[in-house]
Amino acid sequence: MTAKIVEGGQRNSKTKRLRRLRTSIGERELDALLISQPENLRYLSGFTGSSGWLLISGQNAILATDFRYVEQAKGESPGFEIVQIKQELHDWLPGLVSDLGWHRLGFEANFISYDGYHKLGEATKIKQINLQLVPTTGIVEQLRSTKAPEELGFITKAVELADAAFEEAKPIIRPGMREKEIAWEIEKILRQEGSEGIAFEIIVASGPNSALPHARPTERMIRSGEPLLIDMGARISGYCSDLSRTLFLGKADRPFREIYDIVFKAQATAIEEVESGMDASQADRLARSIIEQAGHGDEFGHGLGHGVGLAVHEFPRLGLGSSDLLADGMVFTIEPGIYLVGQGGVRIEDMVVLENGKARVLTRASKDT
Amino acid sequence: MTAKIVEGGQRNSKTKRLRRLRTSIGERELDALLISQPENLRYLSGFTGSSGWLLISGQNAILATDFRYVEQAKGESPGFEIVQIKQELHDWLPGLVSDLGWHRLGFEANFISYDGYHKLGEATKIKQINLQLVPTTGIVEQLRSTKAPEELGFITKAVELADAAFEEAKPIIRPGMREKEIAWEIEKILRQEGSEGIAFEIIVASGPNSALPHARPTERMIRSGEPLLIDMGARISGYCSDLSRTLFLGKADRPFREIYDIVFKAQATAIEEVESGMDASQADRLARSIIEQAGHGDEFGHGLGHGVGLAVHEFPRLGLGSSDLLADGMVFTIEPGIYLVGQGGVRIEDMVVLENGKARVLTRASKDT
Repeated sequence: MTAKIVEGGQRNSKTKRLRRLRTSIGERELDALLISQPENLRYLSGFTGSSGWLLISGQNAILATDFRYVEQAKGESPGFEIVQIKQELHDWLPGLVSDLGWHRLGFEANFISYDGYHKLGEATKIKQINLQLVPTTGIVEQLRSTKAPEELGFITKAVELADAAFEEAKPIIRPGMREKEIAWEIEKILRQEGSEGIAFEIIVASGPNSALPHARPTERMIRSGEPLLIDMGARISGYCSDLSRTLFLGKADRPFREIYDIVFKAQATAIEEVESGMDASQADRLARSIIEQAGHGDEFGHGLGHGVGLAVHEFPRLGLGSSDLLADGMVFTIEPGIYLVGQGGVRIEDMVVLENGKARVLTRASKDT
Repeated sequence: MTAKIVEGGQRNSKTKRLRRLRTSIGERELDALLISQPENLRYLSGFTGSSGWLLISGQNAILATDFRYVEQAKGESPGFEIVQIKQELHDWLPGLVSDLGWHRLGFEANFISYDGYHKLGEATKIKQINLQLVPTTGIVEQLRSTKAPEELGFITKAVELADAAFEEAKPIIRPGMREKEIAWEIEKILRQEGSEGIAFEIIVASGPNSALPHARPTERMIRSGEPLLIDMGARISGYCSDLSRTLFLGKADRPFREIYDIVFKAQATAIEEVESGMDASQADRLARSIIEQAGHGDEFGHGLGHGVGLAVHEFPRLGLGSSDLLADGMVFTIEPGIYLVGQGGVRIEDMVVLENGKARVLTRASKDT
């Protein structure tokens, strides 16, 4: 019974998403929009196969996929017309579009390759079809950036799972273990506790390695006192979480106690002061100004955070050059860091949701170092 | 000492790869080629970071990456000039290309997005730079399709690891276990035995699920007699393996014993008769004709196989429409299958290398059902 209610709810939410998308399509005076970016496709249709295309117009909601996924598509995407396709996009799209009488078709310009676009143009010309291909970017990504209650539910579960896995792994970690070994222990816990794979490759970076913001776990043995940076995430019903903590296993070596306190303060301030209606670049400044004042501005080489949802990095982007506008319903990370090349780094990352204008922190993992 | 010899060997092999690439660049009358497809980038430079660009001309071998990966690039790509970049491709490329005096720049047309290409064109126009962007496809992929001895060494290790993991998992598998549970057991074995992650999501598909060529493991409990299809691969130094077996856990239900024998015969024949110099479509026919003669032609809905290397699917593509030409040094799968919708499927997959004109089978996993 529960399952049915949830399914009905999800179906309603899909209807709402399509309605919002159709408004965007109308505003751009498009006859239809072609969507293939996997998370966009899943968001709108529920389809999780690795190969498929959506065609959305005012009237139509078509999911085109090959024989491998037709049965799956029928199950996952009720309400969509499933069209079985063969060969490549340019082989089947022009005919279909022509049959439907569309003349202005939007496409995802940062997802379709130059070659794909070019072949599509050639095929339309050869078949003498009157079709204008209109490049678009970020239409569905924009819709995805504010989360509906059921999405927030999945994200919250993914956050809780990462928190619990971190707390379960923490007592196991001791000096002499290798970074890779710790990463694998964390992954096993995450997956055995019900995560769908992992949201991204787990980072376990110790000592000087922690100064590389995108370090991969190595065979290096961890030592007490030096920074041990862990960055991990779970996935539930497709939705991700993202959690970073920096540990020291004992008393922090100088200057890391001081560094830790600066990052901690920068993060707490950003969480406290970030607001709906704020520019994402302004949110970044909240933490950055504290780190700059402490003399470490050059050592905070990435943005303050990023949206999290079906993708682990999505809108909004909180950084210096970002023009995104923060709004209620957005879920994102707040993760300032300071990285001393050759010595080590500290990053503290929580996930928050904007509600009633302010940030509510989703992450509960402890910040004891 | 060994490590140094290996490193020297890898460096020589990189030099050879660049030499072959420069011949291709010269034939196309390009001043340079821009490469960003991750496996192509790794193949040529050894760089494994998630963000970087290669620019290869007759004289230059440049690896451009951002601050996160500069140190890693220096370590992984000796012999390359490391350029630290900021922002997006169109922000830095035109200036660099202009400084180097290049006018005809090839790019990977099936990897650069329409948007990326368009922005690059705009930026060159604004900066009044005389630059022609020339779309190319498959240049590096073509080089990658024939393997050098050290590559075959890594692939062989990845094959051995998958074989060993399969044999280790087999006695654990019993009726009543769930597909997901078996997939996770196999993954744990692979990774604990030294695989770098897994080559792709492991397929464990039982009963009717085995009729879906790209099934994902479900909560379904497996039963004796029905087909249990397992498709898995390991990864060593970036190189993949790919192995499929179909088990029955006891006596096979009808009609699967018969189906299994047809697939087995089709595979054995293809392995025996495939030759260097053959069209990849002709190789596909070797197995397909046997399956057709047995009345199951419509139920073999994919190609005979695919190249395996840094990517789990790469050149050559063995299928009906393929125009690839098989040659010594190519490593690929031979994996015919028959899928009865709603009932179940059988696939048997080995990896082979073409040597002295004939296929040598790399896979050793048993074919007892």
